[in-house]
Amino acid sequence: MNRSPEFPPEEFEHRVSRAQNLMREVEIDCLLITNDRNFFYFTGFDGVAQLARPRPLLIPSEGSPVIFIAPNYVTTMSDATWISDIRVYAGMTQAPVEELVKTIRNFPILHHRIGAELGYEQRLGVTYADIELIKREGDEFDIVDASRILWQLRMVKTPLEIEMLTNAMHITDNAFPKAFAQVKEGMTEKEIRTLFIQTLHDCGADSGSASVITGDGDYFRSMALPRDRPVERGEMVWVDLGAKFNGYCSDFSRAGIIGKPTTEQIDLQEKIQEVTMLGVEAILPGSRMADITRLLNQEMEKRNLVFNSGAMRYGHGIGLVTTEPPHLAAYDNTIIEPGMVLSIEPAMITEFGRFCVEQNIIVTASGVTRHSLFGHELIALD
Amino acid sequence: MNRSPEFPPEEFEHRVSRAQNLMREVEIDCLLITNDRNFFYFTGFDGVAQLARPRPLLIPSEGSPVIFIAPNYVTTMSDATWISDIRVYAGMTQAPVEELVKTIRNFPILHHRIGAELGYEQRLGVTYADIELIKREGDEFDIVDASRILWQLRMVKTPLEIEMLTNAMHITDNAFPKAFAQVKEGMTEKEIRTLFIQTLHDCGADSGSASVITGDGDYFRSMALPRDRPVERGEMVWVDLGAKFNGYCSDFSRAGIIGKPTTEQIDLQEKIQEVTMLGVEAILPGSRMADITRLLNQEMEKRNLVFNSGAMRYGHGIGLVTTEPPHLAAYDNTIIEPGMVLSIEPAMITEFGRFCVEQNIIVTASGVTRHSLFGHELIALD
Repeated sequence: MNRSPEFPPEEFEHRVSRAQNLMREVEIDCLLITNDRNFFYFTGFDGVAQLARPRPLLIPSEGSPVIFIAPNYVTTMSDATWISDIRVYAGMTQAPVEELVKTIRNFPILHHRIGAELGYEQRLGVTYADIELIKREGDEFDIVDASRILWQLRMVKTPLEIEMLTNAMHITDNAFPKAFAQVKEGMTEKEIRTLFIQTLHDCGADSGSASVITGDGDYFRSMALPRDRPVERGEMVWVDLGAKFNGYCSDFSRAGIIGKPTTEQIDLQEKIQEVTMLGVEAILPGSRMADITRLLNQEMEKRNLVFNSGAMRYGHGIGLVTTEPPHLAAYDNTIIEPGMVLSIEPAMITEFGRFCVEQNIIVTASGVTRHSLFGHELIALD
Repeated sequence: MNRSPEFPPEEFEHRVSRAQNLMREVEIDCLLITNDRNFFYFTGFDGVAQLARPRPLLIPSEGSPVIFIAPNYVTTMSDATWISDIRVYAGMTQAPVEELVKTIRNFPILHHRIGAELGYEQRLGVTYADIELIKREGDEFDIVDASRILWQLRMVKTPLEIEMLTNAMHITDNAFPKAFAQVKEGMTEKEIRTLFIQTLHDCGADSGSASVITGDGDYFRSMALPRDRPVERGEMVWVDLGAKFNGYCSDFSRAGIIGKPTTEQIDLQEKIQEVTMLGVEAILPGSRMADITRLLNQEMEKRNLVFNSGAMRYGHGIGLVTTEPPHLAAYDNTIIEPGMVLSIEPAMITEFGRFCVEQNIIVTASGVTRHSLFGHELIALD
């Protein structure tokens, strides 16, 4: 069996059953899932996705899901998934449009509504043209946006998902001190990145990502690719680290200074950490993401901190994707629930550093548990 | 500068200018690019793509391209791209629909046709709903499929792309003997996979992927995740290896036997290699992918080989994605051109092995150059 023993069939049955409850609430007869992450979420299969071989999954509002795959996936898919109804289609130039519509017609149809990954922070795993063909072929159905359902499910993690996420966070927590201990003046951003990613692997990550920002007066380089420039004395080495463990992500940052931090740097780092921890403590089931955002705005202002990273949000959900809903932003009125897993990252960027001590937390019935425990202090690096 | 010195602005100007020629031919006023790989192809920026922060790129049929990004990308995007017109938008809940349409209206408009990544082997980097909003906002335009243009461009590589691809292939070629030398009886598929990926890194890859299939009578497990089972004496260790170098991929497979190959295994491996090399030699500018496919069908049949891997194609293009058009399949009538970079992988799977010696080639004016030079023979492993 290729399926990780950590994911028993009951886990996925539970997810599908939650989906079906939500589908019935919003009168959707069937979910059409094509996105790679959603496919993994429901099937347990986390293998390669290819442009020429989309893998549509149908989930009826009652009954068993059906997977459609290209012939070369057969063995590996049956090994990997709990779903027994796997159908093979032979065409490589488009999704199996006719087969999909025929199959949907055999589901219990009450509302003639198919939910698909059309909206908010979703991406299709088939072409836009495929969706148009499905619309034409099954013109008695309305294809409606299912992103609300999908995010309602994925935002609130199951105990097993929380276990995977906690592991990813612990791996990152262990990697930080080990990797920082080897950072030296003169290393390039590329070398530092490689060091951190290797350390993540050594600590048990399936894969890892590291965003490394060093100074030259410009610490705004988020989303950056690492550069070849060697880091110099007095500069900050800011690292945003993410481990992947059984498909689940962690995402938090720490920083050090080549040499010693200045009083000014220490002061700003303390202030940002203070604000971040106020945010962490304010997060409670029942509060809204937008409310926490307002609080963080106030606390930043009180300390004369400017949220100038351009991120436009103080944090985000973490799960199968490193940054996913809900967001700690004024526009996001999501009510916080136990089982949500969040990152909090207020930030201020100056010419002498990027001050951001990202924290990863799990929302419980009574508050939060923090799993990004490695110290927030600026580390003195060699 | 974050931009790799290997990619000068002239490279991208050339790509855009080729795109503009094709756009004028098919009467498209503007390309709307949102897919991550197409974005990299035209802009040179290969940084993180996030669901909440799409990065649309507009390419008018005449004039300069315009990039739209979230505020936190500003510094890193201007470092990374040759395009000077970078506009910042602040919303995170959808693409900047109004700004996009306004900008398109200011381009030279002749046909009221916008080309987007709607069709064949393309994926959108915005939501389906975003495209619908753009249609509504700019209802004087038709949004048409631009996949033909995009693949026409990406299928025929520039000299610089060929350099990157050649490097990726050489890295893989060097990694195979080094990694195979360390494979031992009792290692698990997971361990073998890690070994190969680390070796790819050691050989200069930016990242790597390895599909490892070992025996237990079932060598059909393509697209598989590696398992924890230890490989036993007499089994085949089949490895499909891919290196990434500056964004460009390689993709070829080799295999060994724990102990020694049997006469039967050697015989099948020789036959598959023979067919594969006949395919390699048949590839010439002007011939069609479908014709080579027919030839391979015949050569397989002559030798009583059965193409039973389920792949449904004998090979594919390689570029920014490991498998991309054109395909060595009966349905693909693409005419082979100099600059195409292809993989050829006839295969036959039996209970004693997966017989497939994938080759990577570059089509030149007079034929092909093969860059997967590591021997095809089944290696005797410890």
